Amino acid sequence: MIAIIITIMVLEMKVPHDPTFRGLAGLLPVFLSYVLSFIYVGIYWNNHHHMLHATSKVSGSVLWANLHLLFWLSLFPFVTGWMGENHFAPLPTAIYGIVLLAAAIAYWILQQRIIAAEGESSRLRRAIGRDWKGKASPLLYLVAIAITFVSAGLAQAIYVLVALVWLVPDRRIEARLEHEV
Amino acid sequence: MIAIIITIMVLEMKVPHDPTFRGLAGLLPVFLSYVLSFIYVGIYWNNHHHMLHATSKVSGSVLWANLHLLFWLSLFPFVTGWMGENHFAPLPTAIYGIVLLAAAIAYWILQQRIIAAEGESSRLRRAIGRDWKGKASPLLYLVAIAITFVSAGLAQAIYVLVALVWLVPDRRIEARLEHEV
Amino acid sequence: MIAIIITIMVLEMKVPHDPTFRGLAGLLPVFLSYVLSFIYVGIYWNNHHHMLHATSKVSGSVLWANLHLLFWLSLFPFVTGWMGENHFAPLPTAIYGIVLLAAAIAYWILQQRIIAAEGESSRLRRAIGRDWKGKASPLLYLVAIAITFVSAGLAQAIYVLVALVWLVPDRRIEARLEHEV
Amino acid sequence: MIAIIITIMVLEMKVPHDPTFRGLAGLLPVFLSYVLSFIYVGIYWNNHHHMLHATSKVSGSVLWANLHLLFWLSLFPFVTGWMGENHFAPLPTAIYGIVLLAAAIAYWILQQRIIAAEGESSRLRRAIGRDWKGKASPLLYLVAIAITFVSAGLAQAIYVLVALVWLVPDRRIEARLEHEV
Repeated sequence: MIAIIITIMVLEMKVPHDPTFRGLAGLLPVFLSYVLSFIYVGIYWNNHHHMLHATSKVSGSVLWANLHLLFWLSLFPFVTGWMGENHFAPLPTAIYGIVLLAAAIAYWILQQRIIAAEGESSRLRRAIGRDWKGKASPLLYLVAIAITFVSAGLAQAIYVLVALVWLVPDRRIEARLEHEV
Repeated sequence: MIAIIITIMVLEMKVPHDPTFRGLAGLLPVFLSYVLSFIYVGIYWNNHHHMLHATSKVSGSVLWANLHLLFWLSLFPFVTGWMGENHFAPLPTAIYGIVLLAAAIAYWILQQRIIAAEGESSRLRRAIGRDWKGKASPLLYLVAIAITFVSAGLAQAIYVLVALVWLVPDRRIEARLEHEV
Repeated sequence: MIAIIITIMVLEMKVPHDPTFRGLAGLLPVFLSYVLSFIYVGIYWNNHHHMLHATSKVSGSVLWANLHLLFWLSLFPFVTGWMGENHFAPLPTAIYGIVLLAAAIAYWILQQRIIAAEGESSRLRRAIGRDWKGKASPLLYLVAIAITFVSAGLAQAIYVLVALVWLVPDRRIEARLEHEV
Repeated sequence: MIAIIITIMVLEMKVPHDPTFRGLAGLLPVFLSYVLSFIYVGIYWNNHHHMLHATSKVSGSVLWANLHLLFWLSLFPFVTGWMGENHFAPLPTAIYGIVLLAAAIAYWILQQRIIAAEGESSRLRRAIGRDWKGKASPLLYLVAIAITFVSAGLAQAIYVLVALVWLVPDRRIEARLEHEV
């Protein structure tokens, strides 16, 4: 389902009726917003995929935690379009951060539910280690949301920074590339 | 296919051109409508998935019963958008209920066809037990549809109630999380 | 991919801004057009799926024949929307028939390429038997296209008739329901 | 995910409100643009699928190279719609070529990362051989982009030519047709 989210996101980039450089320039904010969201959802896609593969036992609460995460990810096409079309105005930038924050929390909840379902010998617990990225990201999103109305540009810089931190290859995902990629 | 339905539903939430709190407030009905449908289609996704996995034998009529269910589920993006954009007006609320009702009946038919195909020793029959949720939901939808033109708000409250009843984890779906989630 | 086609088709049913019975009535042609296409693409989905499962050997030309079929099927959302929004006017009705015809021919070509790739002992050749449905359908589409500008309603009646003929359960597809349904 | 890209591309062909031959004729550029992109994305779909199946070992950098390729492919619906709606004007034609070029380079990078991950005995390296198609295509795209503002028609002719070269069946993909097709 994350593959579908990432793909339909492009539909929020509306085709301009103007075949000129001006038409193209007008698209720049929407395009940058798209690139940022592509990276975020792409990271979730990879990590979510590998987390589920490291998972051996699942309870009912894991299923709902998973659906909860997918809910927040499903809002990406919307907030991406809103932020881009309004040229990174403060409010859409803050809402974008709230979706980032909610998705990060939902991911953490899902991770905890899986570890709880697996019990003592959880493979996932060992795999994630200290998980400093997972812990620092929500804090950074919170900071970004808080300063949005002071400087939307600074908030966006934080979003980009966190995305870059996650882009750095992670030992955990050094695994066999799966079929559905 | 249910994963695709749930994902494209977000495309009915049109991006506003207004980056203000007013623009955001105007979105509230569409957003609430989206949340309700996300929960409903998410429940169908989980339950449908687990039903098919508990299924060992399939006849041609099962295939058509499955397609029949998918037809009604495929209308969710449309009725969700219609109900949300018209601020939960009575008629779209009633139509929403009719799609809920039709999907519930289609699900029940599919279940019966699978049990019939499996014969005496049907695993699915044992798994669903008395199925009181499956039996009570259509009745509640019927009540909601009937009172829509008296109080659309009451009808919507019933839709929310039924969704919450299904959200309570079910023993039947306490199974291994599948690949395609 | 056929599952995606069938699902995004609903996006061509545009949400009306009018929450009244008049708004609903205005949707009727689009809805009927949607139902017809849902049945057609659903039939292709089932049959295509089972054909590929009965297939044991594939050549490069089979891959292109498959892509060729998917091309025509991918046009369904468009022709469905065009025919519905224009209240079953003659030209969109004729174009709809041309896509039906092209898809039927493409399906037949794919079938032939698979049989050729499998050689003498082709399981698929035995499975399809005399294939009278596959042979009669293109002829009926041709007739329908020809009479569109005399009576679009008669052409549509033929489309409905052929769809119903295919809806009658087929021995060939009495197989195990697959995962991705 | 490539299957989703190819499918949602049809949504950029907007349904005209005009059920006449004039309405149909007005669609021709968008349709031709769609056909060209369908062939390109279809080729990527087949080749990408078979490349991943020939792959036995994957590093983290392969995952990102794969996401990088998917990013450029995800822009196809947009550039296809833009080029078609503006009747193959020079600028959209050049941008289309840039996306073709970037996707070709991204594909090459992905191929190199896989070969590097597999080491000395890479099956993929043997499978692709001298890869003259993969090497010539980016050069031809570059030429096409360069002459766009002289003759957009000539640039488009080059795009068509390269697509046809790839359409010629390739020994490498003569393999078992996969499930998800």
